[in-house]
Amino acid sequence: MPELRKDPVVGRWVIIATERGKRPREFSVATETRLPGPCVFCEGNELNPPLEVFSIRQPGTAPDTPGWEVRVVPNKYPALRIEGELDREGMWLCDMINGVGAHEVIIETPDHHKDLVDLPEEHIAKVLTTYRQRIMDLQGDDRFKYVLIFKNQGQAAGATIQHAHSQLIATPITPKRVKEELVAAMEYFEYKRRCIFCDYIKQETKIFRERLVIETDHFVAVSPYAARFPFELWILPKRHSPDYTYITWGETLDLAKVLKLVLRKLRAALDNPPFNYMLHMAPFRRLRPGYWSTIEQDYHWHIELMPRLARTAGFEWGSGFYINPTPPETAAQILRHIDV
Amino acid sequence: MPELRKDPVVGRWVIIATERGKRPREFSVATETRLPGPCVFCEGNELNPPLEVFSIRQPGTAPDTPGWEVRVVPNKYPALRIEGELDREGMWLCDMINGVGAHEVIIETPDHHKDLVDLPEEHIAKVLTTYRQRIMDLQGDDRFKYVLIFKNQGQAAGATIQHAHSQLIATPITPKRVKEELVAAMEYFEYKRRCIFCDYIKQETKIFRERLVIETDHFVAVSPYAARFPFELWILPKRHSPDYTYITWGETLDLAKVLKLVLRKLRAALDNPPFNYMLHMAPFRRLRPGYWSTIEQDYHWHIELMPRLARTAGFEWGSGFYINPTPPETAAQILRHIDV
Repeated sequence: MPELRKDPVVGRWVIIATERGKRPREFSVATETRLPGPCVFCEGNELNPPLEVFSIRQPGTAPDTPGWEVRVVPNKYPALRIEGELDREGMWLCDMINGVGAHEVIIETPDHHKDLVDLPEEHIAKVLTTYRQRIMDLQGDDRFKYVLIFKNQGQAAGATIQHAHSQLIATPITPKRVKEELVAAMEYFEYKRRCIFCDYIKQETKIFRERLVIETDHFVAVSPYAARFPFELWILPKRHSPDYTYITWGETLDLAKVLKLVLRKLRAALDNPPFNYMLHMAPFRRLRPGYWSTIEQDYHWHIELMPRLARTAGFEWGSGFYINPTPPETAAQILRHIDV
Repeated sequence: MPELRKDPVVGRWVIIATERGKRPREFSVATETRLPGPCVFCEGNELNPPLEVFSIRQPGTAPDTPGWEVRVVPNKYPALRIEGELDREGMWLCDMINGVGAHEVIIETPDHHKDLVDLPEEHIAKVLTTYRQRIMDLQGDDRFKYVLIFKNQGQAAGATIQHAHSQLIATPITPKRVKEELVAAMEYFEYKRRCIFCDYIKQETKIFRERLVIETDHFVAVSPYAARFPFELWILPKRHSPDYTYITWGETLDLAKVLKLVLRKLRAALDNPPFNYMLHMAPFRRLRPGYWSTIEQDYHWHIELMPRLARTAGFEWGSGFYINPTPPETAAQILRHIDV
C-alpha cells in the first residue's frame, strides 16, 4: 500500500509508493557529453565575464586575471538587477516591486573538466566559505531580505553552462518556501519551546536511523521522511544555528567532507545524476517586527539536495502534491552501503 | 527593469523579466514523434486495460467493447489504491495516512491520432462532462476529500502515453496548492465580503484587458498577472461557482469552445507545445468545521494551463520563486492576435 506522508516541518503531503520502490538502475537519465573547453568560466578567460565581485586567489594576483581558485561574477543574464531603489507599486488586485536584487555566479574551480565532487575537500570548503562571504556582504544592503544560494548541475537540472558553478540570488522578499519553513518552525517553537529541526535530527539519529546516510562530528545527511524526489537528501548541522554565516571554519571543512561524500555516493548509485541543491537559512534580521523574535532559537539552516531523475509532471506543479516512487528508507540504505 | 509581481490570490511572488520578453520563436521544444498505433488506449483494445468505470458510448454497445467516445479506466500504475480503509498513523515527528485514493485515466477519444485540440467542440464537451460525472461519483466516497483532474500532454509535460487522455486522482486530503487558494480566498472574503476571483475577472475584463485572451458568454481566458510560466493561462467561469460539478450543459459547451480555441492558439503560437492543465475546485463539503462555512461564496473553480516551454531549474523547486521570461501581457497579445 502506498503511503501519504506529511513533512514534519512544513506539513507538505507526499505520496510514497513504498511497494514499487524504484531502484537506481530503473532511472534512465540521458548522459550528457562534456563540451570541450575552454569556456567563459575558464582560467585565462577572466575578461569575459570581467568584474569579479569576490575571489579566493593566489597572493599577488590581480582581480580578473588567472590565479584564482573560486571566483564570483555577476550573472550576465540576471533575473534581478542590482541598480535602483526598491519601489512598491499597487493597483487594484495587483502588487509589484521593481526587480532589484543581485544575481551572481560562483565559479567553483578554474578547471573546465572538474565537477564540484571532483575537487579536494579543502577546495570545496573554499567554495562553501565563498557562499558565506557573499551572504555577509549582501546582508549589508538594506534593500535585500534574503540570499538564496543554489546549484544546478546537469541540463535536466536547469544548468545551461557545464563548467562547475553555483549561483546566488539576493531578493527584496523572503522566498515562499523558506517562509513556510520559518512559520512552521516558529509555530512548533511556540508550542514546544524547541527547534523542530533539532528534534528531527534527534529522531533520525537516535531513534529510527533508517533514513540516515552519513553522520559526522558536525553534520547529518538524511533522506527526509516525506522526501519529494527519489534520493532527495538534506544536510543539517547538528549544532543549532539559524544562519549559515555562523558556521566555523572547522564546521566548513566537515561540511565539505559530507557534501563530497554525498555527491560521490549519488554519482556511484545513480550514474552521475543531474541535481539541484539549495541552502535554506533565516532571512536577514535587521529591524524586525516581534513576529520573528524567536528566529534565532526556532530556525535551523540546512541544505536540500534533489537528484533530478524523473521528469516531474504537471500534477506536482498544480497540486503541490509529490509522488515519489522511491521510499527514502530504500534510498538511504542504498547510499549507506554503496562503495565509493 | 524586471518586476516582482505578487499573485493576487495566493500571494506568490514571481519574477517577470519584462525587458527581455521571450517571443514564441525563442523557445525550442524538442518535437516528439507520434508513435504508430494502435496502443492500449485505442478502440479495439478494450480488454487491455479492461474494467471501464465510466464511458460515453453508442447506445447498445457493452462496456469494455468498441463503440465509446470517452472512456474512463483505473490507472494501471496507480499512485494511490482504491481498496482499504483510511488509517492515520503517527510516531514522533512523522505522520502518515495509508495511500487510499482513486487514480483513473480519462481516454478522450478512441482515435490514436487525435489530440484533444483536434476533437470537435461537442466531443470536447463530452470529455468535460465526463470529468463532472467522475467527480460526482467519487464525491460519494467518504474517504476522499478532493478530486484533482489534470492533463499532461507531451513528454516534457510528464506524459508517458501519447494517446489523448486526462487523469484524475482522488485524495484523502486537499492538495496544498488548492488549500492555499482556499485560505487566501476566505481571507479576502472575510475582509471584502466578495469573491476574489470574481473581482479578478472584473479587473481583467473591465479595467486592464491587456492580459485577456478570450472572452465568451460564460468564460474568460487570461494570462494571469503573476504568471509563473511563459504563456500560462487561466480559464475562469464568469458566473460565480465554487464547484465544477455545478456547471450546466450550456456552460460545458462554451467551455469546450474556449478550451479548443486556447489550445489551437497555443499550438499555432508555440508549435504544438507540451502542456499541463489542472482543474481547481472546492473540496468535497460534507460535515465541515466552521472554517469552510463561506466556501460556497468565496471560492471559484477554474482551470490553470501551463505550456512547458522552459526546463525549470532547481531554483524554482527550492524557493517557490518563479522566473518568467515572458510577461503575461506579451503572451496575451500574441495569443489574441494569432490566426487560427
